[in-house]
Amino acid sequence: MEISDLNRGLLQECAQLISPYVTRTPVMKSRSLNSMLGGELFFKCENFQRTGSYKMRGATHGLLRRSQGRQLKDVVTHSSGNFAQAIALAAKELGVGAHIVMPTSAPQIKKEGVMSYGAQIYECEPTIDAREATAKRIVEETGAEFIHPSNDVEVILGQGTAAMELLEDLPELHYLIAPVGGGGLLGGTAFAVNCLGYKTGVYGAEPEAVDDAYRSFHSGSIQTNTSTDTIADGLKTQLGTNSFPLIRSYVSDIILVTENEIIDAMRLIWERMKLVVEPSSAVALAAVLKSKSIFAGSKTGIIISGGNVDFPFP
Amino acid sequence: MEISDLNRGLLQECAQLISPYVTRTPVMKSRSLNSMLGGELFFKCENFQRTGSYKMRGATHGLLRRSQGRQLKDVVTHSSGNFAQAIALAAKELGVGAHIVMPTSAPQIKKEGVMSYGAQIYECEPTIDAREATAKRIVEETGAEFIHPSNDVEVILGQGTAAMELLEDLPELHYLIAPVGGGGLLGGTAFAVNCLGYKTGVYGAEPEAVDDAYRSFHSGSIQTNTSTDTIADGLKTQLGTNSFPLIRSYVSDIILVTENEIIDAMRLIWERMKLVVEPSSAVALAAVLKSKSIFAGSKTGIIISGGNVDFPFP
Repeated sequence: MEISDLNRGLLQECAQLISPYVTRTPVMKSRSLNSMLGGELFFKCENFQRTGSYKMRGATHGLLRRSQGRQLKDVVTHSSGNFAQAIALAAKELGVGAHIVMPTSAPQIKKEGVMSYGAQIYECEPTIDAREATAKRIVEETGAEFIHPSNDVEVILGQGTAAMELLEDLPELHYLIAPVGGGGLLGGTAFAVNCLGYKTGVYGAEPEAVDDAYRSFHSGSIQTNTSTDTIADGLKTQLGTNSFPLIRSYVSDIILVTENEIIDAMRLIWERMKLVVEPSSAVALAAVLKSKSIFAGSKTGIIISGGNVDFPFP
Repeated sequence: MEISDLNRGLLQECAQLISPYVTRTPVMKSRSLNSMLGGELFFKCENFQRTGSYKMRGATHGLLRRSQGRQLKDVVTHSSGNFAQAIALAAKELGVGAHIVMPTSAPQIKKEGVMSYGAQIYECEPTIDAREATAKRIVEETGAEFIHPSNDVEVILGQGTAAMELLEDLPELHYLIAPVGGGGLLGGTAFAVNCLGYKTGVYGAEPEAVDDAYRSFHSGSIQTNTSTDTIADGLKTQLGTNSFPLIRSYVSDIILVTENEIIDAMRLIWERMKLVVEPSSAVALAAVLKSKSIFAGSKTGIIISGGNVDFPFP
């Protein structure tokens, strides 16, 4: 599947294909966060998704498409953790072997998740170059098929089904916001909103410390990060050749937030909503709360991308 | 209202009275916890209740009843935190002043909640004697009316509405389990199940370190704790003259759990369900998982009592 193939029919087909494997996650609200913003927020809780993040959607779609009409052999991917777990579970359910390259810095809970689904982990340095080189080596050694965690077109389409469900529940949303790392979720979200004909404005939210998407969006070409120094471990990656054009075409803007703003938003979701969310998910709420001039007085959907954060008690 | 007055009609009236002030909380499930138990678990999520715990039910009912036909003046209570927050919010909504005695050991999030609702906090040593003496002094000084956090009959009835809702949703439950501290939740739960005519067996769950309810239940008279050394900060109190007879009459047994079992259960709820719950809530899951001979193969409702735990990240 190429980016130019994407259309509404393929999105709807994707939603149907993956439905036996994924959870239709609930939408939650918070009285106190609404009053803090002066607007209405609707949280699409992908932290309740199987494997604890929206990645299960795209991973399942990627493997199902690759399995059509043939027995798929092993797959390999690289991921800081959420796509890793998703591929591991989807592969297990489809009877496919999975080889996962994970940076040494990935949270323990994500590594344990991958192992519990029976996938093979290969640790590497926490850089994009190291991830790609290790994955390439495994492809050569095992003959496994590579599936990119955020730039694969079928994966991107799968990630768009979270927004599709949210808008089926709440077609009146004025805005929708999602965190952006590799751009699979934001690209899929923006594409879904657009191809389904909604008038909802789509925003991305990104840590200042890894602002490659913001700079790419505003410069018109893919930029790289010079640092990975953010608490939002899922957002250290950079845009790809497929996710970028979707974001550039259909996203209104990308809002940057500081590390302190991320922590404050995570605390609010914790204290007011009693949800375990990972820092990457808090990035979207942080962006909304610092941009009241856009979101106050409106109905905004926030995609809570995942809840895989290490248990912090002794 | 006296304990001998309690009947099905009063419970139903209570549910109606408080319904504009409380949330009908959702019931959640977990595939992996079910498979770990070999049974079906249904979590009544009172961590999503207003003020973050089921206490909002009883507090609201207590104040509404006291306000019938007259303007209630100030109220005073003592609480390690959840009843404190609940009285503070209920009092605010009903235009009543609230004086709250809290032990110095109460979690910061609970103190902040109380203050945010405009109630007055009086700190005291973390013992039951100190709590009661301080509350008595405030009654004398201010003329405020005392409302007991777990032994007040109207409060106990209010707490029973969580089980009532859960059984309306799932009348087929074989068992229902709730943590026990002062016994308001467990007593109200047991009374509700019984007066509504369900055949559901009711269990209590208690930390070994504060096993007064277990010893009271088995000896037939109210016992006291000699230690308060448990992570379950909401369960350090002891049974009262109203909660005890309800528990003694309608509860099947009380299951004790260790501190490590509480932490392990809290981690499971965190990792598998992505819910922020306080240690007291994890006590009930811990009891179920250590008593597979009772709960495996059955459908069990667990009352997740609250989610007020300090934010653990830097």
